[in-house]
Amino acid sequence: MEINAHTKWCGVIGNPVEHSLSPSIHNAAFQACGLNYVYLAFRVERIDDAIRGIRSLGNAGGFSVTIPHKVSVMAHLDEIDETARRIGAVNTIVLRDGKLGGYNTDAGGALRALREADVALKGRHVLLLGSGGAARAIAFGLAARAELQRLTVLGIDEEERRKLVRDLAAATDVKLEDGYLDERHLRGALPDTQILIQCTPVGMSPKVEATCVPAALLHPALAVMDIVYNPRETRLLREAKAAGCRVIPGLEMFLNQAVEQFELWTGQKAPATVMRQVLESKFA
Amino acid sequence: MEINAHTKWCGVIGNPVEHSLSPSIHNAAFQACGLNYVYLAFRVERIDDAIRGIRSLGNAGGFSVTIPHKVSVMAHLDEIDETARRIGAVNTIVLRDGKLGGYNTDAGGALRALREADVALKGRHVLLLGSGGAARAIAFGLAARAELQRLTVLGIDEEERRKLVRDLAAATDVKLEDGYLDERHLRGALPDTQILIQCTPVGMSPKVEATCVPAALLHPALAVMDIVYNPRETRLLREAKAAGCRVIPGLEMFLNQAVEQFELWTGQKAPATVMRQVLESKFA
Repeated sequence: MEINAHTKWCGVIGNPVEHSLSPSIHNAAFQACGLNYVYLAFRVERIDDAIRGIRSLGNAGGFSVTIPHKVSVMAHLDEIDETARRIGAVNTIVLRDGKLGGYNTDAGGALRALREADVALKGRHVLLLGSGGAARAIAFGLAARAELQRLTVLGIDEEERRKLVRDLAAATDVKLEDGYLDERHLRGALPDTQILIQCTPVGMSPKVEATCVPAALLHPALAVMDIVYNPRETRLLREAKAAGCRVIPGLEMFLNQAVEQFELWTGQKAPATVMRQVLESKFA
Repeated sequence: MEINAHTKWCGVIGNPVEHSLSPSIHNAAFQACGLNYVYLAFRVERIDDAIRGIRSLGNAGGFSVTIPHKVSVMAHLDEIDETARRIGAVNTIVLRDGKLGGYNTDAGGALRALREADVALKGRHVLLLGSGGAARAIAFGLAARAELQRLTVLGIDEEERRKLVRDLAAATDVKLEDGYLDERHLRGALPDTQILIQCTPVGMSPKVEATCVPAALLHPALAVMDIVYNPRETRLLREAKAAGCRVIPGLEMFLNQAVEQFELWTGQKAPATVMRQVLESKFA
């Protein structure tokens, strides 16, 4: 596909962005579908001017938004999707008829990753570790769509965690528990947990030997998802596998949130197999 | 070259831009040199917001500016090159250390095209048709660098033409004449003209049978350059060739202004042969 005067431009807006895998995965997807789009990486300090730029530089296609702009970008968009508004964060901008709409595909990406791994959610007890942006997105996604038996949130930032639980209680009818993220609370919650979702940065490269969960607490009835995808197999996932758990790598959530973005931007089914191959090749 | 998080983005800023050949020619040049750049087309209405966007969206490489923003863009840049300031128009934005510099490569492009066609300028009488942006750029380029014997400007917009001649007289020491663009003035000027440069839109597709110059006035001692490049051979060039004149098609000026842009952006020699091939393929 020759880049020409009709090529639409997309990209990720964040800071930093130089290690983002989004350009590789989305460009491969556009190419596989024969779509005349390119996807770039924009390191942005002033989100207001960046959004003005998107509005004024023609041929804009769609954008991913990442740290530190997921919350601050919302004030500059024309419409915010219901789920994104509840989460309080936007990771996707869609252009439609000259208007900028904010969406959050982290929640849907996590749900898709669990569904594809055949992890049933209805009537189950889910334990979320962390209360930051990713935890919020996943918690609202689960609470809105999964009919859980119960959702427990453990986190080290008391204020952030309390706010998440308060917001969940106000907007959904999921049964909630929460506590400090330490061995005592893990020991209390894990025995009757079926799904553990690790939403903190613990275990991320370069500190690959860090983990929130003592291996002795992992048991075969658990499914364990880690949102960290670098390394591809975190220590938590390695130990969960050894304990007989079903594991869902962070790559799957990353892939599926990108699949949802692609479908929002183009209105067509994403070439998930191609996208997974590109993503896996980056970790080969 | 895979588009990734380090790819620099460039583009043409104008309105309209959907028929621009700049993306094709610059993308081919970047690719031939193995440079990780893409070049897009941005239809822009608000030039102020577009420039804010360029400043705030990281990885910006360099930009072409075309109608209607060549003059209005100047107020939003950090520095204006001397030649561009005299011309009063910018067709190129260069990013250096976070600053935006304005340049005009139309003048240099025309001079290069004449030089490559072995058209000597020193001591010669040049007749320019038109007094718009392109005529201004070429007139200042010639006056500053070519040691002409004389420069005559014929144009139909009296006010614009007088201003050009006034500005040229104030900034350069070229000997000047000017008059209305009609057969009488052409008949007076052409016999002792060696170089005729057609800078009006007359002859451009779709009105390909239009010409400013009656064929009978063309003579073999003339070199004729037409800035119109669509069609590739205008009626003027066809009749000039038939009259035994040396002809320089508008494609050559377009190519050479792009060559100068590429060199300003990248600091390296442009692959002119590749660029010419791409350009020619668009008219095959």
